[in-house]
Amino acid sequence: MGSFAKNQWYAAAWLSELTDAPLARRILDEPVVLFRTPEGTVSALLDRCPHRLVPLSMGTVTGRGLQCGYHGMTFGGNGRCVHIPGQDTIPPQAQVPSYPIEERYGIAWIWMGEADQADRALLPDIPYHDDPDWERIDGGYQHHPSNYLNIVENLMDPAHTTFVHKQTIGNPAAADTPVTMERTDEHIVAYKWLKNSPPSQMDVKIKDFGDEKVDRGIFFYFIIPSTSRVDVITMPAGLEPTEENYNKGLRNNSYKFLTPESETSTHFFWMHLRNYKVGDKAWSERMRGVFEQTFLEDRDIEMAMQSWQNEVGVRQFVGLEIDRAPTIALRMIGKMVKDEKAERETAVA
Amino acid sequence: MGSFAKNQWYAAAWLSELTDAPLARRILDEPVVLFRTPEGTVSALLDRCPHRLVPLSMGTVTGRGLQCGYHGMTFGGNGRCVHIPGQDTIPPQAQVPSYPIEERYGIAWIWMGEADQADRALLPDIPYHDDPDWERIDGGYQHHPSNYLNIVENLMDPAHTTFVHKQTIGNPAAADTPVTMERTDEHIVAYKWLKNSPPSQMDVKIKDFGDEKVDRGIFFYFIIPSTSRVDVITMPAGLEPTEENYNKGLRNNSYKFLTPESETSTHFFWMHLRNYKVGDKAWSERMRGVFEQTFLEDRDIEMAMQSWQNEVGVRQFVGLEIDRAPTIALRMIGKMVKDEKAERETAVA
Amino acid sequence: MGSFAKNQWYAAAWLSELTDAPLARRILDEPVVLFRTPEGTVSALLDRCPHRLVPLSMGTVTGRGLQCGYHGMTFGGNGRCVHIPGQDTIPPQAQVPSYPIEERYGIAWIWMGEADQADRALLPDIPYHDDPDWERIDGGYQHHPSNYLNIVENLMDPAHTTFVHKQTIGNPAAADTPVTMERTDEHIVAYKWLKNSPPSQMDVKIKDFGDEKVDRGIFFYFIIPSTSRVDVITMPAGLEPTEENYNKGLRNNSYKFLTPESETSTHFFWMHLRNYKVGDKAWSERMRGVFEQTFLEDRDIEMAMQSWQNEVGVRQFVGLEIDRAPTIALRMIGKMVKDEKAERETAVA
Repeated sequence: MGSFAKNQWYAAAWLSELTDAPLARRILDEPVVLFRTPEGTVSALLDRCPHRLVPLSMGTVTGRGLQCGYHGMTFGGNGRCVHIPGQDTIPPQAQVPSYPIEERYGIAWIWMGEADQADRALLPDIPYHDDPDWERIDGGYQHHPSNYLNIVENLMDPAHTTFVHKQTIGNPAAADTPVTMERTDEHIVAYKWLKNSPPSQMDVKIKDFGDEKVDRGIFFYFIIPSTSRVDVITMPAGLEPTEENYNKGLRNNSYKFLTPESETSTHFFWMHLRNYKVGDKAWSERMRGVFEQTFLEDRDIEMAMQSWQNEVGVRQFVGLEIDRAPTIALRMIGKMVKDEKAERETAVA
Repeated sequence: MGSFAKNQWYAAAWLSELTDAPLARRILDEPVVLFRTPEGTVSALLDRCPHRLVPLSMGTVTGRGLQCGYHGMTFGGNGRCVHIPGQDTIPPQAQVPSYPIEERYGIAWIWMGEADQADRALLPDIPYHDDPDWERIDGGYQHHPSNYLNIVENLMDPAHTTFVHKQTIGNPAAADTPVTMERTDEHIVAYKWLKNSPPSQMDVKIKDFGDEKVDRGIFFYFIIPSTSRVDVITMPAGLEPTEENYNKGLRNNSYKFLTPESETSTHFFWMHLRNYKVGDKAWSERMRGVFEQTFLEDRDIEMAMQSWQNEVGVRQFVGLEIDRAPTIALRMIGKMVKDEKAERETAVA
Repeated sequence: MGSFAKNQWYAAAWLSELTDAPLARRILDEPVVLFRTPEGTVSALLDRCPHRLVPLSMGTVTGRGLQCGYHGMTFGGNGRCVHIPGQDTIPPQAQVPSYPIEERYGIAWIWMGEADQADRALLPDIPYHDDPDWERIDGGYQHHPSNYLNIVENLMDPAHTTFVHKQTIGNPAAADTPVTMERTDEHIVAYKWLKNSPPSQMDVKIKDFGDEKVDRGIFFYFIIPSTSRVDVITMPAGLEPTEENYNKGLRNNSYKFLTPESETSTHFFWMHLRNYKVGDKAWSERMRGVFEQTFLEDRDIEMAMQSWQNEVGVRQFVGLEIDRAPTIALRMIGKMVKDEKAERETAVA
């Protein structure tokens, strides 16, 4: 529990998952129940009735709130009990912890730390999310039974695609291209450019380039502690590297939102944006299949690492040159966790 | 192991389960093997050959006794070895612990505590068990993966039926009827009466009441530490509440015998008696189906509670008014366990 | 880990298992990866990339060696890294532990202890292995979820066949025949002779003996710490007991090579040699089926013992006369483990 940053927004669920029934999901090692209140907003409570400890997610949503499936105690979106069958007085301790929720980008974001620090302005930014010139793939979710730091490393690491993703997106030539790295306080980005080169095999399936040369860029952003954005650009060769020019060719933005479930497992949400084949749902479904397969290939690796980490209690024995960006990302997360801890101790003292 | 009362009779098996083959069953966290000796009586031994620790339940019952499946060592009903293949002398330590067994009501009852206190007179009493005016459903068994106290609470608790048993026996109106409670040293009973009311929907399926009004009573007995009797009475309105009058209408007696398997699981035996539709086996099978379904609904809740209890090590955070009877039942069991412990320590000193 | 003899050859794999792909196998509680190097010899490494702890068995064998499936680090048969994609310098700590391997009798034998003591001359001896007058069944393997000492006892123990192998090779008459025992420093043998008797039911299925009487011998060898040879001889009655005469009738040699996987599980390799029906592959397949079934019967017993051993931490409560040979075998193994431990401590001091 001491190893997660808590004062952060984490993706808890797709809004499309939140229908009439409550949804159980363990987040940062706490069992949470998500549900839509009678008022229509999403709430999150500790998934445990304070009476006999039955998970509230086994209950039902009524006009009053979330009703326990054992004796009918009912709780509002703020966690306070609003009804006890057969009893007039509601004791003050009849309540469950609640967690701040924000609904944005089709996702319910949860704040597991200090509620008074939960600021909507801190939600991750997703450019072009609602832009009509872009097409979006929503709803991606996988359960990865591995510590989320293993996934952070993976997402900051262009080098593994050659070996892990032979069957899908791997490209033997990519293994030896040099990578540039930059960082701010909030994120780190590793990127590389192939200038004045032919378009990729994938690109020519999308558009007929003829003899045209292109500049190809790939940017691996990681917004600390849990958001990954991979920005893949194919633009006419020789243009200035500006946001406007990036959109002049083919562009893919692949997002992953990592939510630690426990020390050894992670909720892996993903979303994809592209500026071509807008409205082509069949193309989206083909892409979805490729992504799902790719992330499952990573999952196999992550699970195997986790198994060894459990056995030896160590993450790594030898460092390589390709580790630079992931190492910095992990260091930034580590500092964030440490600062939070210091802050909590100061608050107590 | 310190949390069960041991000097008690517990249901170990239906006699109908004890055929030619030995039966393995963990009871109060001890692995037990039950078998019918050549003399025809049921015996219970620790399920472990003293030679190489092979479970005796993997062996066979022979004319001599229970024969181990590995080297053929054979044990009588008292646990003493009576035969070793290829060896003339039987060493005195060649024996296994045995447990007193009584056969009654079609059940083998086991005594896991001090054998010299095992008194047949302490077996639970089941009125009308062999009465020809009553019909009986035998053989009910479920495995409930939850501490038996969770089931004790459930069985003392009329309030949960509205919410848990919506699909089966639940009745929204019942949630708010007041409950009376009485106790002796051996049992506790919670009951309520609906006087001068129309018969229940269930009752009218059994008998045509016309415009007749009835008095309806439901009694939740719990005989410490492990026997539940629910006595449901529908009798002509206005009669004195006597045992004789109780039998003048429709009456159901539902028994559960709880046998702790381990700290987190319970053998749940059940039996049902009724004073109507005697001889109607088809009706019995329909009732059996409803009961099995009802108890599985409870099992879902009990399992979920157990999971939280494992995680937080606490049974309850908030008490409600409906907890009165179960709270007293648990307190009585707690005292029984504590007294036994004190007795054992005195015996040692 | 302190309970296995490490300075010994253990069967790690059938050579036929080592094709193009690496093979993962836990041995003496260490995860090992076996693979055939580009030079064609078998190597064994710790199954863990020193970079991010991904099991090397998830990788592929290339012309350079064993390539990790995550980032392509490649290791030679000696465990030294020979290639890192995208990096020119190979850091000296980029290596994994390797284990000596010898290939003999169609098996890759591994030495998990001090590499400088790994002497090919210490491999077990298998007479007649390549003799054209003998037929061989290769490739036998089962996974037995039990400590290997339970299997050692079983293999030194003629008495259990009557009870465990009722369905296969059991013979009620055998239970009471006396057993002779002899030992050297390296092995122990328990044997018995039935002189001048009719051939067994099995024997007469193989050959028409008419009225001929035979001498039947069965020898249970156990070469410390992990090789079992059961030598079953049916020869014309009255001959001298010499190796030459043993081959004048029907002879079966059944080998088992036990390799501890962990404290609670064992790799069980088996091989069979016979001096009759040479070239009869259909007969071999029938025998293979009988053996597999027989060993699964033992496995059921061994698993059940292990379960009790886990619970009580004891192997045995009562000793029987039939335990003489297994007891000595376990004592010899125990001494071997103790001597190794003393040697390691001396080396450290």
